[in-house]
Amino acid sequence: MATSVVVGEEVIRNKQVIFKDYVSGFLKESDMQVINGTLKLKLPEGSNGIVVKNLYLSCDPYMRNRMTRVEGPNLFSSFTPGSPLTGFGVARVLDSGHPNFKKGDLIWGTTGWEEYSVITELEGLFKIQHTDVPLSYYTGILGMPGLSAYVGFYEVCSPKKGEYVFISAASGAVGQLVGQFAKLMGCYVVGSAGSKEKVDLLKRKFGFDDAFNYKEENDLDAALKRYFPEGIDIYFENVGGKMLDAVLLNMKDHGRISVCGLVSQYNLDQPEGVQNLMCLIYKRIHMKGFVVFDYYNIYPKFLDVMLPYIREGKIMYVEDIAEGLESGPAALVGLYSGRNVGKQVVLIARE
Amino acid sequence: MATSVVVGEEVIRNKQVIFKDYVSGFLKESDMQVINGTLKLKLPEGSNGIVVKNLYLSCDPYMRNRMTRVEGPNLFSSFTPGSPLTGFGVARVLDSGHPNFKKGDLIWGTTGWEEYSVITELEGLFKIQHTDVPLSYYTGILGMPGLSAYVGFYEVCSPKKGEYVFISAASGAVGQLVGQFAKLMGCYVVGSAGSKEKVDLLKRKFGFDDAFNYKEENDLDAALKRYFPEGIDIYFENVGGKMLDAVLLNMKDHGRISVCGLVSQYNLDQPEGVQNLMCLIYKRIHMKGFVVFDYYNIYPKFLDVMLPYIREGKIMYVEDIAEGLESGPAALVGLYSGRNVGKQVVLIARE
Repeated sequence: MATSVVVGEEVIRNKQVIFKDYVSGFLKESDMQVINGTLKLKLPEGSNGIVVKNLYLSCDPYMRNRMTRVEGPNLFSSFTPGSPLTGFGVARVLDSGHPNFKKGDLIWGTTGWEEYSVITELEGLFKIQHTDVPLSYYTGILGMPGLSAYVGFYEVCSPKKGEYVFISAASGAVGQLVGQFAKLMGCYVVGSAGSKEKVDLLKRKFGFDDAFNYKEENDLDAALKRYFPEGIDIYFENVGGKMLDAVLLNMKDHGRISVCGLVSQYNLDQPEGVQNLMCLIYKRIHMKGFVVFDYYNIYPKFLDVMLPYIREGKIMYVEDIAEGLESGPAALVGLYSGRNVGKQVVLIARE
Repeated sequence: MATSVVVGEEVIRNKQVIFKDYVSGFLKESDMQVINGTLKLKLPEGSNGIVVKNLYLSCDPYMRNRMTRVEGPNLFSSFTPGSPLTGFGVARVLDSGHPNFKKGDLIWGTTGWEEYSVITELEGLFKIQHTDVPLSYYTGILGMPGLSAYVGFYEVCSPKKGEYVFISAASGAVGQLVGQFAKLMGCYVVGSAGSKEKVDLLKRKFGFDDAFNYKEENDLDAALKRYFPEGIDIYFENVGGKMLDAVLLNMKDHGRISVCGLVSQYNLDQPEGVQNLMCLIYKRIHMKGFVVFDYYNIYPKFLDVMLPYIREGKIMYVEDIAEGLESGPAALVGLYSGRNVGKQVVLIARE
């Protein structure tokens, strides 16, 4: 993503959310700044990138990790201080120097936190073919979080009918889908979330068998024993820390833990220590981390499954849409205190 | 295991190591007491147990866990205060009320820390058929630790030729075998141990490619980076705690961690917290605990593999044999400070 002012050609305002500097501790809105940049809408001769108009931006927990200075090779590079944040989004192609994309195409993938972006890294961009569903869905249920839920549950957990499934951050973009996949498979499903409203959503909208507000539980071990007197077969891990320690004590023998995220840890300078790993042995637990990028090749198959589920109303989906790029920093910060209800999206432009 | 004094029949002295009371913190010799009990060598009419003369007893790290009061269901029951310790051993059958065992048979399995035991729980006892190898081997390379090494490496790690393998507590009963299995498979193998003598043993006797004394490393992360500049494919976990945290930072993508034991934690009232679990995600790590009992059904197959290895000298094996039941408490305590060099065994009786 680059911004350049070119005088005498078609140069327009390009509002941007700038990453000010590396962050330590909890992310604050003031770690980001909204500025008015400019952009030339036409690509330079010979470029094989694309120019896009951003429509929706996605707030995803992993973004906090890109705000810490990363030393050495890592899954993600750090954001560049002084440049716009980048993240998943939905955009319309305005100009293209690449044969796979043409003006007018809708795409989802990594773009900038700005009104318009020049994208030169096209690997991992998907063309949107199905527009009978809301476009914002491609930041969530039909995008990276949706595919994460799908592979993290079906591929990592090897679920079976009748198993006991626990999901943390269960009303979030990934959790709400995992719970519904588990119900479709005939599992018993309980989720944790951080407010009464979210707990109600889990039980009433998403069909979870039960749900609880972890903020109201002094003793997470006791809470889990109440909801899973027979133990947990599958834990879909989104939060880490104290919840993981409590879950380890409540896993059944040969249980599986799919490690998708550890959002409770991302704003801590030192992660909390997890103490109950001895349970991995006693309970013969299989714990596996995964990264959704490894499964991009099954995205077409995933769409074939998900689109009918959505069209037929078999899977519900709740988004929390903030309006305007200016609301982006607050929306992103809110993710780490659980302010959002459902998938947090930022609407940049209605076409 | 029970002891009874019966007057007027064949009653003999039965020296025993008594578990005095539940232990907190580091195990001390004074947590056990050697006493002279007595035992009637003949089974009561109608019993389907066996009476055995114990020949070798095994000191195994998990035994410390049985010295803590266990609440609720667990893999192991706690030892009973006032009664002898129990553990793996090799014994000769003196009397049998069970059709599967007859007087004169040699067995290995769970017996008492005493000269003679009455065993009524016969599940998990194996008859020893091959006596061209030292009988003590059935407490180690041909017993529970050997089978643990075998399944923990081959079944849990899915090793491939050329992979980078790290083993902690590498000169112990399990570690020394895992390293040799990995070398036989064509892996690059490094082990950690707690003394120069052990490090030499790993390199010279067991054929490890390299080894280091973890007690001399201030920075385990830096040490691992030195021995594995390209990272670790397989970690065979015997110790836990700080070593696990350092290993997580040095795993390669799609690495596997076989969790066999966490001996560094067994004497702590609160386990150390492991902080680097985020690596499970970034590196797509598969971490799996296992319990050897689940694999007892493959013991015959295991023997078919191991006996030729031993007879042909393809696998080396080092034992640390303490003489006499009186030396049992010190031998067991020494296990947790790493005093033993190789598999710790207690010789109870030469026949």
